[in-house]
Amino acid sequence: MNNTHIITGGTGFIAYNLVKWALACGDEVFVIDRKNQTYMNYFHNLPIILANLADLNQTIPAFAQIKPQYPVIVWHLAANSDIPAGVHDSNIDYQDTFLTTYHTGLAMKHYGFKTIYFASTSAVYGDHGDNIISELTAPLMPISNYGAMKLAGEAILSAFAEQFIEKLVMFRFPNVVGAPATHGIIFDLIHKLQRDQMKLPVLGDGTQRKSYLHVTDLVNAMVLIGEKTNEKRTICNIGPTDNGITIKEIAQMVRDEVAPNALIQYGSGSRGWVGDVPKFCYNVDKMVGFGFKPTLNSKKSVALAVKQIKEQLL
Amino acid sequence: MNNTHIITGGTGFIAYNLVKWALACGDEVFVIDRKNQTYMNYFHNLPIILANLADLNQTIPAFAQIKPQYPVIVWHLAANSDIPAGVHDSNIDYQDTFLTTYHTGLAMKHYGFKTIYFASTSAVYGDHGDNIISELTAPLMPISNYGAMKLAGEAILSAFAEQFIEKLVMFRFPNVVGAPATHGIIFDLIHKLQRDQMKLPVLGDGTQRKSYLHVTDLVNAMVLIGEKTNEKRTICNIGPTDNGITIKEIAQMVRDEVAPNALIQYGSGSRGWVGDVPKFCYNVDKMVGFGFKPTLNSKKSVALAVKQIKEQLL
Repeated sequence: MNNTHIITGGTGFIAYNLVKWALACGDEVFVIDRKNQTYMNYFHNLPIILANLADLNQTIPAFAQIKPQYPVIVWHLAANSDIPAGVHDSNIDYQDTFLTTYHTGLAMKHYGFKTIYFASTSAVYGDHGDNIISELTAPLMPISNYGAMKLAGEAILSAFAEQFIEKLVMFRFPNVVGAPATHGIIFDLIHKLQRDQMKLPVLGDGTQRKSYLHVTDLVNAMVLIGEKTNEKRTICNIGPTDNGITIKEIAQMVRDEVAPNALIQYGSGSRGWVGDVPKFCYNVDKMVGFGFKPTLNSKKSVALAVKQIKEQLL
Repeated sequence: MNNTHIITGGTGFIAYNLVKWALACGDEVFVIDRKNQTYMNYFHNLPIILANLADLNQTIPAFAQIKPQYPVIVWHLAANSDIPAGVHDSNIDYQDTFLTTYHTGLAMKHYGFKTIYFASTSAVYGDHGDNIISELTAPLMPISNYGAMKLAGEAILSAFAEQFIEKLVMFRFPNVVGAPATHGIIFDLIHKLQRDQMKLPVLGDGTQRKSYLHVTDLVNAMVLIGEKTNEKRTICNIGPTDNGITIKEIAQMVRDEVAPNALIQYGSGSRGWVGDVPKFCYNVDKMVGFGFKPTLNSKKSVALAVKQIKEQLL
């Protein structure tokens, strides 16, 4: 049975990979984003609706253009993608991360769409030190504006599931890598090496350890969990089953691939920026329980992404 | 040592009791609210700053009027108080519950205030059936717009505590009763009996069981926990140590006190309204651990409030 996929933030990095999957299934796709990207030319004749979902007066008309052929799944991927930028100005995440979510929910009410898959984040948990983080970890005390505004989005969609949303699936993403990259640590590091082949400055002391998932695994996980869950509201961590790799290892992989003679220069402190969580152990038993196992671990995901982003940028 | 208390929603029911406590301590008090209430005349010469904190352009000028003599505690009590109304229009809780919180945080940043006590709610938890709800209960899936927008407020204040807030105390309130009432079940039931002495219609089948705390106990709990906690971010349930009383018992108490001949007419279903949680068992061990024990249980709190609100209204 086919579906119609409405994808917000639909020209972003994750969305690109999702659109590819959906079209390969023969499904119908509508993309909403506030800007287009040249790599979207890959999809001929794909409807791209330009609208800023932080503005309700653009949101309702954007959804009005959609006449779905099949049962609708709304994939809400629109969000601020520059998390450190959001630290200095909470308005960025208020608008781009929270309001886009709230308004997408209101548009679903307006047009009678009942199913939403929401890209939430591990950042909703905050800093739990050495504890392993599962969906039952509490209390939720985010330390970045991004994590806060994603949690705010989870909260309002959860309330809407009592009213007009029939199926709400909230995926708490790890760090996701792959191409076409528009931001993120690998993207940033390769850019730095493009400017100067001899040195690679890194934020923080390099000891931060995080989980990384490749975007192809991420898309497959969302599709499978969304299909399998029978709950009205689902919250599910998505991530690799290993316990991550350090920033140091990532910097070394990028250097070895892009500019082997560069000197890596570390900063100080275990946090790359205010709101950065230095250590992060993620329990993905629930995801595994749904039957999903990533094909790549953190290290292999990063290694593949480094090659892909190098090819994209150089 | 004295404090300066800035109380948002400062003419509301809970704030009235808090102001009374603060002035009795000899502390300085500034009240911000979008409207005044006649019962505030009780406090002669109290500065009442009229501003709608859902509007940032009113928020910053409102805080600009405050020149504190002592170390500042911001008590953020402003919120939508008509929870069922918020069910039909999410904009009410978005504006009055979330934006007032976000803007109060931004005003603190602007004026360098570092301590905030936030009136959050048990509604952030959602419906956990028969489970006893502690601060470690997860996942948080609120079922009312009110609960969602309070959780959104907790989230952004938590992120601000990584940036410019030094002490954040979040109290998750139960149902609070007492005078001067402006809303709530006792207030509504007495109003109904004023209109018709012979019948008392009740929302739902009366089996909903909830915890009730008297406002004097609530104020004392907040003051004590706020003083005792050493954490940067504290989340603490506040409530009675019993497991609550039913709507049926409340309706009977109101009838016996106000109109003994009235016939109580129950509705159907265990929920009074969409987003109402039918059963609610609250773990307050953390509060007790801080050394606070309520003087009244749910039943006695309601009984006292019924007498007080009857006196206020009749």
